[in-house]
Amino acid sequence: MYCLLKCAPLILAVAVCHGWLFGDFVGKQKELNEISLWPLPQKFQSSAVAFKLSPASFQIVHAKQSSAGPSCSILENAFRRYFEYVFGDLKKHEKSRKKVYDSDLVELQVWITSADPECNGYPSLQTDESYELSVDESSAVLKAANAWGALRGLETFSQLVYEDDYGANNINKTEISDFPRFAHRGILLDSSRHFLPLKVILANLEAMAMNKFNVFHWHIVDDQSFPYMSGTFPDLSQKGAYHPFTHVYTPSDVKMVIEFARMRGIRVIPEFDTPGHTRSWGNGIKDLLTPCYSGCSPSGTFGPVNPILNSSYDFMTEFFKEISTVFPDAYIHLGGDEVDFSCWKSNPDIQKFMVQQGFGTDYSKLESFYIQRLLDIVAATKKGYMVWQEVFDNGVKLKDDTVVEVWMGNKMEEELQNVTGAGFTTILSAPWYLDYISYGQDWQRYYKVEPLNFPGTDAQKKLVIGGEACLWGEYVDATNLTPRLWPRASAVAERLWSDKSVTDVGNAYNRLAQHRCRMVKRGIPAEPLFVGHCRQEYMGL
Amino acid sequence: MYCLLKCAPLILAVAVCHGWLFGDFVGKQKELNEISLWPLPQKFQSSAVAFKLSPASFQIVHAKQSSAGPSCSILENAFRRYFEYVFGDLKKHEKSRKKVYDSDLVELQVWITSADPECNGYPSLQTDESYELSVDESSAVLKAANAWGALRGLETFSQLVYEDDYGANNINKTEISDFPRFAHRGILLDSSRHFLPLKVILANLEAMAMNKFNVFHWHIVDDQSFPYMSGTFPDLSQKGAYHPFTHVYTPSDVKMVIEFARMRGIRVIPEFDTPGHTRSWGNGIKDLLTPCYSGCSPSGTFGPVNPILNSSYDFMTEFFKEISTVFPDAYIHLGGDEVDFSCWKSNPDIQKFMVQQGFGTDYSKLESFYIQRLLDIVAATKKGYMVWQEVFDNGVKLKDDTVVEVWMGNKMEEELQNVTGAGFTTILSAPWYLDYISYGQDWQRYYKVEPLNFPGTDAQKKLVIGGEACLWGEYVDATNLTPRLWPRASAVAERLWSDKSVTDVGNAYNRLAQHRCRMVKRGIPAEPLFVGHCRQEYMGL
Repeated sequence: MYCLLKCAPLILAVAVCHGWLFGDFVGKQKELNEISLWPLPQKFQSSAVAFKLSPASFQIVHAKQSSAGPSCSILENAFRRYFEYVFGDLKKHEKSRKKVYDSDLVELQVWITSADPECNGYPSLQTDESYELSVDESSAVLKAANAWGALRGLETFSQLVYEDDYGANNINKTEISDFPRFAHRGILLDSSRHFLPLKVILANLEAMAMNKFNVFHWHIVDDQSFPYMSGTFPDLSQKGAYHPFTHVYTPSDVKMVIEFARMRGIRVIPEFDTPGHTRSWGNGIKDLLTPCYSGCSPSGTFGPVNPILNSSYDFMTEFFKEISTVFPDAYIHLGGDEVDFSCWKSNPDIQKFMVQQGFGTDYSKLESFYIQRLLDIVAATKKGYMVWQEVFDNGVKLKDDTVVEVWMGNKMEEELQNVTGAGFTTILSAPWYLDYISYGQDWQRYYKVEPLNFPGTDAQKKLVIGGEACLWGEYVDATNLTPRLWPRASAVAERLWSDKSVTDVGNAYNRLAQHRCRMVKRGIPAEPLFVGHCRQEYMGL
Repeated sequence: MYCLLKCAPLILAVAVCHGWLFGDFVGKQKELNEISLWPLPQKFQSSAVAFKLSPASFQIVHAKQSSAGPSCSILENAFRRYFEYVFGDLKKHEKSRKKVYDSDLVELQVWITSADPECNGYPSLQTDESYELSVDESSAVLKAANAWGALRGLETFSQLVYEDDYGANNINKTEISDFPRFAHRGILLDSSRHFLPLKVILANLEAMAMNKFNVFHWHIVDDQSFPYMSGTFPDLSQKGAYHPFTHVYTPSDVKMVIEFARMRGIRVIPEFDTPGHTRSWGNGIKDLLTPCYSGCSPSGTFGPVNPILNSSYDFMTEFFKEISTVFPDAYIHLGGDEVDFSCWKSNPDIQKFMVQQGFGTDYSKLESFYIQRLLDIVAATKKGYMVWQEVFDNGVKLKDDTVVEVWMGNKMEEELQNVTGAGFTTILSAPWYLDYISYGQDWQRYYKVEPLNFPGTDAQKKLVIGGEACLWGEYVDATNLTPRLWPRASAVAERLWSDKSVTDVGNAYNRLAQHRCRMVKRGIPAEPLFVGHCRQEYMGL
């Protein structure tokens, strides 16, 4: 009705798009319908020649020349995962391998070319995620410098396999050369406004890998609750979580998240946001927060971290010493956004301190005073840090490798220009606040964003290292988070991975509709783009 | 942040509201915190005196004086369901009944007072759903005229039980006298834009019962697909469903939905919308739809049902004969909305017919011509019918018992005035199109609607028999339907059940937050209202 009329041009576009071309594409249209790659590889060439894959004979193996072997748990784990994805319920027949035909694809050889396949490490901002994939008679070869690139290539390989009319698995002769446009491709989840059970976090890491995201920005604590269980300061979660047993992340939980993410080439960057957004911290740590005053006496409520006490910095030193060992990534996100000055203004001790320091009435100077000391504390742990844009805006002196996260939609281009103009790396999340929902296909709005569309030199553009889709937790928990995030975040995934020229919404609709059905088939309750159906519908609730 | 500031007044209101009173409430505040009734009963009186319930000793039984007994499957089924809801994982201890204390509540007696408890029938528009519930020393009594009222009372009883600090089940001394404000309290689900697996429909019938909804308006087919498997015309689903085996409702599925709904006092009203919204019908029934023309030749596309062929009416006669026997409810929804005239206008045979009938160029006359004949066909099956408002607006002659559904937000009050002014019963869905989503707590907007707020006499107001929350299917399927519907639809549930004076949003927030946690505990992934947590979070995905 309203919708049919509204969307008719789009549906038409999709129908017309079946014959899309890109790269050096050659081949017939029929087979093309089956192609549903997401995000789209950088270079792609395919032909109508198809091979069949049987679960009885097909194998994913280490290439002879590969520097990695069976001891590489990342790859061994991934081989199994992608075998399952490709063949689903079809079990691998026991040893009785059936006859192999000429038209069969019998193996995918994974060839790691660097001396160090990085099987025991963690992905980083510098990780080379490129890969080359060649599917030809009888075997396919996936070449990557390291295990991380191989993970991306395995995902692509699994997306190339399609069912023919008889339900048999097919793959076309294909050549792919692929690499990400941006190095930092993140998802922010917030486990403070609502606690997110481990199962939900792991499921979303799965979905991230299906979309080639490589950073889990874990906004783990905030005003509302402190679910992170600290070994050094157990009272933080004991008194600051919604519940000290059922609504916390134990050290073992955190390890599991990090390892599950590592297996999928995903970095885990925790955010411990201060000095604002810290109400829950105050339950466990005496005197950490600023007492607010009503007239001449304390009102009983508390504001941001108290920046005038040495004890605050002593605490932060101990706390971030722990965090820097628990989380292996080279970066910690230190927040620094939305500091409310009203409580500081009400407090006579703070007022006195302002005078002593000569800050006048400019409380952003006090904020910078705090942040500056915090950054030095964290730098001493040998970690890099990420911060929200206010920290840069307030003129805090930042380390060269600081990543500034631009989240304010207002004057976003100007901010990117300023941050990169000052020589800092930056990531963009402003256009991708997925907690804001509206009727219809808002993924198209996310998809149309061009991150480098701001005034600046080539050198400045190079400082934009990626972006993040943020799903703040005010209105989501285990009941609705996953379908609200997917496939809306997939639009951001393609924007951050594929070439700048990949902008056709009609073409994207077609591929994304298939990609979301693939996620559903793999157990992720990704919501529909529009009317239609999947061959296999979601069978949960 | 933005949200904290925005919502602060509400949070405050909730805190202040802990001491709310209603009815003839007496008692202490402490116990009141535990009360989370939804929708709020008409008359409610409670005291701080509390009794304990043990799964080892507590029973739900038929009262001696009751006209119903163990052969009443509706009640037997409900007794088990509500025992489970109350005690959850706690299994009923084997015969070893432990000591009973004076402060224990040992039984709930269910007393059906009418000679006919209606155990073998179906609920109807005329059903008396009132009940009286008295909880006092050692036993509680639930009195209702029939099984349907008892179902509503059992839900209320289960909502009165709360866990104390030791995890023990408590219930306060309470007197309740309750009845619905409106007789028709519906949920519309759409299984055509997306197929809804049986499991999803049943789960939502469960949730409906938890909210005292009593009508499932099943928008079962539409343009996009025809999942209803017809015995008389198997080609309708064979050729019109998304898939003839995996995306259809078999006769057995339909029976199961109807019986599952009956067990919960819910009517199932199927909608077979014509003459528009019928694209999928055309796949299975030759010549049913109007061929559209492009200039002088058929364009290959089709419009609404062809109203000038006798074969169309012959088909409808046979088809609705089947529908009238498959669905036991006294009403069928015949649609009649959004007929697009462009195809009719393009067709030379239709043009000729218009001239013959003296319709001029007023195609709404042709629409009425069709609808009038259809209504007569359906009336001959002894069914009543519901229609969307356009049918009334176009001046079609309607049976006295027709229910006109007002769905257009524009001039809604005027429409209610006109429909009731003409003496027809009406239901309202215009303010409750839950497929439209937005950021934040839109349930409050649904909650604030007053259905009788239109100019009219008392007699006219009495003709408003209820309303429906509609979740059209363009953007929902099994992945996201349930959390998108609940607890947003709960706001509509209270508006349609509780007294007109129950309008305090702060009070509602408090109760609804608890009610949604109760739904979660019972396995329904109802999404959160705002920040916070449930004692038991959702454990699915």
